[in-house]
Amino acid sequence: MNFRRLITGKPLRSEEASHEKLPKWKALSIFSSDALSSVGYGPEQIIVTLAVPGLLIYGYFSYATLAVIALLTIVTLSYAQVARANPGGGGSYSIALHNLGELPALVAAAALVADYVLTVAVSISSGTEALVSAFPLLIGWEVTLDLIVLFVILTLINLRGVRESSNVFVWPTYFFILGIICMILAGLYNSFTGTSPIVPAESLERQQADWVVILLALRAFSNGCSSMTGIEAISNGVPMFREPSVNNAIRTTYIMSSLLAVMIAGISFLFLHYHLVPVENVTMLSQLAEQVFGRGWAYYYIQLTTMLILYLAANTAYNGLPPLLSIMARDSYVPRYLGERGERLGYSKGIVFLSLISAALIIVFQGNVEHLISLYAIGVFLSFTIAQSSLVVKWIREKSSGWISRTILNSFGACVTGIVVVVIATTKFSHGAWIVLIFIPSMIFIFKAIHRHYKTTAEQLRISTADFAEHLEIQNPKNLIIVPVSGITKIVAASIRYSKAMGGDVIALYIYTDEEEREKFEEKWNSLNIDVSLRLLYSPYRSIVQPILAYVNEIEMHRSIYHYITIVIPEFETAKWWHRILHNQTGWILRTLLILRENVIVSTLPYHLKK
Amino acid sequence: MNFRRLITGKPLRSEEASHEKLPKWKALSIFSSDALSSVGYGPEQIIVTLAVPGLLIYGYFSYATLAVIALLTIVTLSYAQVARANPGGGGSYSIALHNLGELPALVAAAALVADYVLTVAVSISSGTEALVSAFPLLIGWEVTLDLIVLFVILTLINLRGVRESSNVFVWPTYFFILGIICMILAGLYNSFTGTSPIVPAESLERQQADWVVILLALRAFSNGCSSMTGIEAISNGVPMFREPSVNNAIRTTYIMSSLLAVMIAGISFLFLHYHLVPVENVTMLSQLAEQVFGRGWAYYYIQLTTMLILYLAANTAYNGLPPLLSIMARDSYVPRYLGERGERLGYSKGIVFLSLISAALIIVFQGNVEHLISLYAIGVFLSFTIAQSSLVVKWIREKSSGWISRTILNSFGACVTGIVVVVIATTKFSHGAWIVLIFIPSMIFIFKAIHRHYKTTAEQLRISTADFAEHLEIQNPKNLIIVPVSGITKIVAASIRYSKAMGGDVIALYIYTDEEEREKFEEKWNSLNIDVSLRLLYSPYRSIVQPILAYVNEIEMHRSIYHYITIVIPEFETAKWWHRILHNQTGWILRTLLILRENVIVSTLPYHLKK
Repeated sequence: MNFRRLITGKPLRSEEASHEKLPKWKALSIFSSDALSSVGYGPEQIIVTLAVPGLLIYGYFSYATLAVIALLTIVTLSYAQVARANPGGGGSYSIALHNLGELPALVAAAALVADYVLTVAVSISSGTEALVSAFPLLIGWEVTLDLIVLFVILTLINLRGVRESSNVFVWPTYFFILGIICMILAGLYNSFTGTSPIVPAESLERQQADWVVILLALRAFSNGCSSMTGIEAISNGVPMFREPSVNNAIRTTYIMSSLLAVMIAGISFLFLHYHLVPVENVTMLSQLAEQVFGRGWAYYYIQLTTMLILYLAANTAYNGLPPLLSIMARDSYVPRYLGERGERLGYSKGIVFLSLISAALIIVFQGNVEHLISLYAIGVFLSFTIAQSSLVVKWIREKSSGWISRTILNSFGACVTGIVVVVIATTKFSHGAWIVLIFIPSMIFIFKAIHRHYKTTAEQLRISTADFAEHLEIQNPKNLIIVPVSGITKIVAASIRYSKAMGGDVIALYIYTDEEEREKFEEKWNSLNIDVSLRLLYSPYRSIVQPILAYVNEIEMHRSIYHYITIVIPEFETAKWWHRILHNQTGWILRTLLILRENVIVSTLPYHLKK
Repeated sequence: MNFRRLITGKPLRSEEASHEKLPKWKALSIFSSDALSSVGYGPEQIIVTLAVPGLLIYGYFSYATLAVIALLTIVTLSYAQVARANPGGGGSYSIALHNLGELPALVAAAALVADYVLTVAVSISSGTEALVSAFPLLIGWEVTLDLIVLFVILTLINLRGVRESSNVFVWPTYFFILGIICMILAGLYNSFTGTSPIVPAESLERQQADWVVILLALRAFSNGCSSMTGIEAISNGVPMFREPSVNNAIRTTYIMSSLLAVMIAGISFLFLHYHLVPVENVTMLSQLAEQVFGRGWAYYYIQLTTMLILYLAANTAYNGLPPLLSIMARDSYVPRYLGERGERLGYSKGIVFLSLISAALIIVFQGNVEHLISLYAIGVFLSFTIAQSSLVVKWIREKSSGWISRTILNSFGACVTGIVVVVIATTKFSHGAWIVLIFIPSMIFIFKAIHRHYKTTAEQLRISTADFAEHLEIQNPKNLIIVPVSGITKIVAASIRYSKAMGGDVIALYIYTDEEEREKFEEKWNSLNIDVSLRLLYSPYRSIVQPILAYVNEIEMHRSIYHYITIVIPEFETAKWWHRILHNQTGWILRTLLILRENVIVSTLPYHLKK
């Protein structure tokens, strides 16, 4: 208890929940760390795919990059509309639930769950890769580092519930942007003033387009789409902006996307210029920084800020998933307790849930970003598509001013992102996309099963006020109290004493396995003149539990007079924890078995051993 | 429940326990499988050690083998005396407890526990090695095979409680003896009629004796001592022999040891003659069989009978450890429930305990016999030494006829086996003997701690009959019943109804986290006119458990009138197992926390969800 407090801090009262409004400059850095950080792995993922067939096809690299930037523009414009449509915040799950219905909403929810979990796994793994690129002596410790960052830093910070607006989270983003922009400028200066050609001739070579090459280029594009994750963050957080919040949010979205586009374009150009190829244990961003700055302080600045912003990006999932789960818990699609706020006002169970699943992913995939990325983009684009389709329905239904242009914009967005989903699902099917395609229907099945259970439970528990009153009006309900006794000990005395304090008839049950033992006990019992009737039960198979269950059965069969059977079971509270394993768990077993019967109540009487 | 019955068979009544008396020929095979089977690995373990330094020093091999056979003679003569001293059976633990006192008895017990567990692990692993030698396609599946034999065969057979005397266990031993004797005879015939020298000249070479070589030879001898495990089995089972049981047991011991000595000598001679060296994945016995018989049916006969007798040897530990644990449980040195007989009259918990620990050993050591052997011999010889020292004390104390010669014999035996313990402990210290040397004191510490706990518990529970009667005579004990309510539902109605059936004052507790919710509930409650007083508790930190604990505290502080506080907690019994995880475990948490207080009773009221 005290240890927990030490880690998570003292509890906070419900009234302490507050919502500080954020100025644009703060909001930009807080909401964009996920999106911007993806330049740490996005362009590299395009090249990794193209490098697979042995020769690098740089020509396709520039195509794929341009396609990604074009898609980014469309998604940005569409998401500005999402921000407008959701001044109250709420992700694609809520929008879809209100506009499209249950199934699309659950698809979006499943996609979002996958997306958030992968954000944590991918961002942490990439951050660690940036760190390992700079300090090669850490090679081999990647998974350990990942898990330390996950549990010791992210989970604890979020259980303590540091405010999103804390300045800790603001500066790294700006440091990162500054570093990358400087690197791009310095790289451009080098390339225009250097002796090597700006775009080397072999970069422009392309193979004859056959199906394999096209498939490869599409797959590279699919991987590149992972750069776009996190674009939706601002539209989910509109209420946190200063007034006029919608306009501020939209403007911030534009700034973020512009920065992202500039960074992707710049970095991709420099990859081309320097003809970088993927190398094990060194990220391409690290290679680029080394080419541009040499291995001086500027290089380490790039690596460390990259690492920081990536870890920060993982943190955004902690701001996203637990609230989503709490909304879904309110709608009964996930276990209700995921919606409970912990002592520090965070959704503590959701936080722990996210950490555990992410840890499992990191361990299973051994922190390998490339494999995780395959799973990533599909969920993101699925939720983009659903969000925009919902908006189309909403615009058409509401027909507010400007609805036609908005409908066109979002329809176009939905189509494009929908096509991207299909492209990713087909080109990357065997590369892990199938996992997502199994995961999403499974999640939907689970969500629905949970929903159904809560619904039938509520129905079963519902009672009208008339019935309630009637329920309580039984004439003098009779209670039979059974006390299993094992000998003449203090604990037996305490059990009988308590049983007599309850209203009802008391029977002491003695289970014996040999005749001699029984005679001795019976004699002793009779000598005590206890005004409780004793039943002796023979246990031919030496079990204590079976005869008691059989006796309860017998009473239940013939009880015409008893409404309840209460069994009083003493439970040792031992002085040391390990003493517990020295005692039979008969009480626990009895409780577990008796609860299967209705109207049999188990009363646990604690008995404290002092030493 | 039904699945368990299917596996272990229908329960047996206590009266069905029987003790069939065994004729010598049956007893020989049943008790000697452990000892005789060790020729499957004993001689090989000597050579493995000597092969370590690169060149094989066969000269030392014959020395080590002769030393083992000499030691075997001494131990056999000593153990004939153990059989004489223990007509009632019982291992070195019992003898030591009666003659030497608690500490030596516990040392012997710890050594025996280690010994039995290792017997299972070593015998199963060796049996599988014999199988894999014959069928190389099983290479790589050793640990899996070990675990299958352990759990699917040994554990289940013993849980079902097949009689030791079953013929299933009799024949494999004789088949094995027959096979090995034939192989030795055939091998001798070959070597005397063949062209190669009977004992090749290089076999007699010895290096200049320096410390390293001597240490190595001693270590080889230590490993060879593992051949002697199981010698004590007969002396533990004297009551199972036909009358005159002591004489029959002694004669059987002699026969067994003679067979063992002949087999060790014969196999060792043939190893020398054929100049066999250890090869991975092929046991040396398998190499020998191949040299003698070629890879025909005779070869497979040797391999399969070796496998069978080794698995059978593992089974002897199941006849040994659970009864030992049950004796120790009666003496309160291990958890009492280890002494309970299961439905099939076997000590089922002891059987499961043995299987689990053995499985852990097999997995940790990856079924590698050589590493396990290092741990093995030391425990065996420690228990030999203690048993014989106990006898010396007994003979001197009793001074029955012939006591002087017996005292001399057992003193000599104790000294020799004691020296062997020291030799093994020093020469194999870094090869795993240190584990045993840590294990034994740790076990003794645990045994004593358990003993102390049961003793103090019994003292705390003891009550005189006068006190018992007085204990029950309290005037009209008052009971306060607390019912936490969460709304107006059927389950709340059921809880209140039950509470009113108990004698005592009833209070309903409602925990709220926001004011509005509370008002709504209070209004509804009042409209129902329930004759139970309602307490409303605000939970600033959103916990359900904390306010209830605080309220119980408050009552306890000020209760002048209540002897008991009973808390009625409903528990859902869900229709499907997985529904359980959808419900809060508040009841469970409350019960766990409330049991820490005295005089607070938790009553669990089951509520059955039908779907």
